[in-house]
Amino acid sequence: MDSYLIQVNGHGDHAPILDVHLKTNGNSMSLGKVKGRKPRWAVRASEMSKKTFNPVRAIVDSMKVEPNPKKAMISLSLGDPTVFGNLPTNDEVTQAVKEVLDSGRYNGYAPSVGYQSCREAVAAYYNCPEAPLEAQDVILTSGCSQAIELALAVLANPGQNILVPRPGFSLYKTLALSMGIEVKLYNLLPEKAWEIDLKHLESLVDEKTACLIVNNPSNPCGSVFSKSHLQKILAVASRQCVPILADEIYGDMIRDGLLRLSQRILGPCTIVQGALERILHRTPPEFYHNTLSILKSNADLCYAALSAIPGLQPVRPAGAMYLMVEIEMEHFPEFENDVEFTERLISEQSVFCLPATCFEYPNFFRVVITVPEEMILEACSRIQEFCEMHYQGAEGAQDLECDK
Amino acid sequence: MDSYLIQVNGHGDHAPILDVHLKTNGNSMSLGKVKGRKPRWAVRASEMSKKTFNPVRAIVDSMKVEPNPKKAMISLSLGDPTVFGNLPTNDEVTQAVKEVLDSGRYNGYAPSVGYQSCREAVAAYYNCPEAPLEAQDVILTSGCSQAIELALAVLANPGQNILVPRPGFSLYKTLALSMGIEVKLYNLLPEKAWEIDLKHLESLVDEKTACLIVNNPSNPCGSVFSKSHLQKILAVASRQCVPILADEIYGDMIRDGLLRLSQRILGPCTIVQGALERILHRTPPEFYHNTLSILKSNADLCYAALSAIPGLQPVRPAGAMYLMVEIEMEHFPEFENDVEFTERLISEQSVFCLPATCFEYPNFFRVVITVPEEMILEACSRIQEFCEMHYQGAEGAQDLECDK
Repeated sequence: MDSYLIQVNGHGDHAPILDVHLKTNGNSMSLGKVKGRKPRWAVRASEMSKKTFNPVRAIVDSMKVEPNPKKAMISLSLGDPTVFGNLPTNDEVTQAVKEVLDSGRYNGYAPSVGYQSCREAVAAYYNCPEAPLEAQDVILTSGCSQAIELALAVLANPGQNILVPRPGFSLYKTLALSMGIEVKLYNLLPEKAWEIDLKHLESLVDEKTACLIVNNPSNPCGSVFSKSHLQKILAVASRQCVPILADEIYGDMIRDGLLRLSQRILGPCTIVQGALERILHRTPPEFYHNTLSILKSNADLCYAALSAIPGLQPVRPAGAMYLMVEIEMEHFPEFENDVEFTERLISEQSVFCLPATCFEYPNFFRVVITVPEEMILEACSRIQEFCEMHYQGAEGAQDLECDK
Repeated sequence: MDSYLIQVNGHGDHAPILDVHLKTNGNSMSLGKVKGRKPRWAVRASEMSKKTFNPVRAIVDSMKVEPNPKKAMISLSLGDPTVFGNLPTNDEVTQAVKEVLDSGRYNGYAPSVGYQSCREAVAAYYNCPEAPLEAQDVILTSGCSQAIELALAVLANPGQNILVPRPGFSLYKTLALSMGIEVKLYNLLPEKAWEIDLKHLESLVDEKTACLIVNNPSNPCGSVFSKSHLQKILAVASRQCVPILADEIYGDMIRDGLLRLSQRILGPCTIVQGALERILHRTPPEFYHNTLSILKSNADLCYAALSAIPGLQPVRPAGAMYLMVEIEMEHFPEFENDVEFTERLISEQSVFCLPATCFEYPNFFRVVITVPEEMILEACSRIQEFCEMHYQGAEGAQDLECDK
């Protein structure tokens, strides 16, 4: 008996295990009738997959423009602080993960909710007297995307709706629609540092509202709510009896359902879990402070530079890695919308900013502030050149005068 | 303006970002009426979470027995080869991951389908002339659980059904039921080395059948299908026009849906992805051969030892890490079923085997053969002592005589 052969590169002498896939045989289509059913091939992607729509991908993929070959490309579009190497992780973190690898003790299956020791470390890190947190409150996931998916899946049934910020992170909508959950967008107010329009929010609640997503600090706005604004949000939620899904933590009223859902996939990366306790305890505070002071300095630089540009209205950020900029479209009659504006910014200046239509918020664009300082300054200077080239000041300047 | 404060241990002077969760206020329940709706708290776990049921957890968690304090516990229940340290991973693998960590180049966001270079490495590794495989055929996932979830989600709509082996890995059913997909169990035949009962399989197909899951080698059986048996399975699928979901690879007719579904979560662990190409190319072949020869030797030892025990009928495995053992229940009238049998095996002999009711296959139990050799021998010897203690031979022995 053939036993324990491994199939490498498909050249084993055993039946190839990985070769068991569909063979469409023309002749077979007219064969066989079972219980009066006439088989025919009709394999279609599921309704769920058809409903899975990523607006960022759809918009960005359709922006088929080439950068200006005379200028090096500067991408301010991707919210990934590791791209340029200017914000490296701390050595302590790398070391912690390497020691976990050497130990060989974290190469197996962890509980689907995460190792108990790891859950305890997270709970201890975030625990405070006003909001006690225990290990059983913590479920570890493969990134925040899975955390959001679990939270939505436990709170909402198909046919219910969720309240989502506009502008806001697109994944809420992508996940909700794929699950048959309706999305209702509540407005953030740029003139109030992106606070929630509470009246608008409350007007959207109905008997099918499963939860209110509060994303704070905000992607894409970089805003941070004040304590008093958070209390007003809580008051609405309390009055309307709508649970809050705070990106990224959940209340504890739904724990059992979350435990069961988390069993669908066997937990997040064990190597990183093994290192987490040490990462939480031994990463020096200066690492966080340095990273944050770079972000703050970049945010200030970027805000100041963009504020000086005719036709742009940046909104000062206070957190996260983002800054939203309003395009006064009336001053740029050449461009139909933010997508066209950012496309031309690429083709003329080789600067890539994400049009805020990606966040359900037309006529703005999002700038990522994690890139190196000199790159931000260069990008802002190119954006200025671009705006000065296309700005139509005549009536616009008069309007500005009147506004004063 | 407060900017870029980090909330550590809940002691920052900013409003605690992580403290935005539900506060149930008794008074609030009678407040506020919007559009005639009288709000009240009714937050329930979703239908999906209620339908998420892990039979292994349910059965194992209800087995509240203590091991015999005079005997050290031997667990043959968990299919995790890393538990005892006798099957360590290869140094080359550890080194590859450590170098990826040092490079700092894999700490960011990867495409949701995985890095292109990583997809190419996987495609090249499994590509063969008879079954060409390209990078675009490969979608990387967080473990095989997520791969199975994606494959089911792209193939089946709620209300359709899938064909699943009995005995079989319980996750297929857990995932399917949580998505509203019906499960139809087709029989494997222990007397034919767990080949599929093809007539039974074909009889289950109807117009709502979305796919046929073929798990080869099998968990929990450890069986490997012959080439001719695989061809017969293909013939059924072809005749009935049912796509095969081969655990763990998919046909390419559903790629676009899979791409979209994969965007729900931003890809698997980047650190491991960064190391994968080197792991595939540079792990020495002896590593695989040594591991497999240990498994083969353990399987042979275990099969031989259990074959000699009265009342047990092991089925010889040929792959995976498992062995199924039939309990001739008529010889053990003390025990109602395999769950009771394995419970008493724990309390008397401190040996933990998984009752095959976990795999929809009562009156068998599953043995994991990744444990060290001396532990397998000790476990088999205890199982023998246990069976000799409880075996009722009188009519049984006669039956055996008649069977000859």
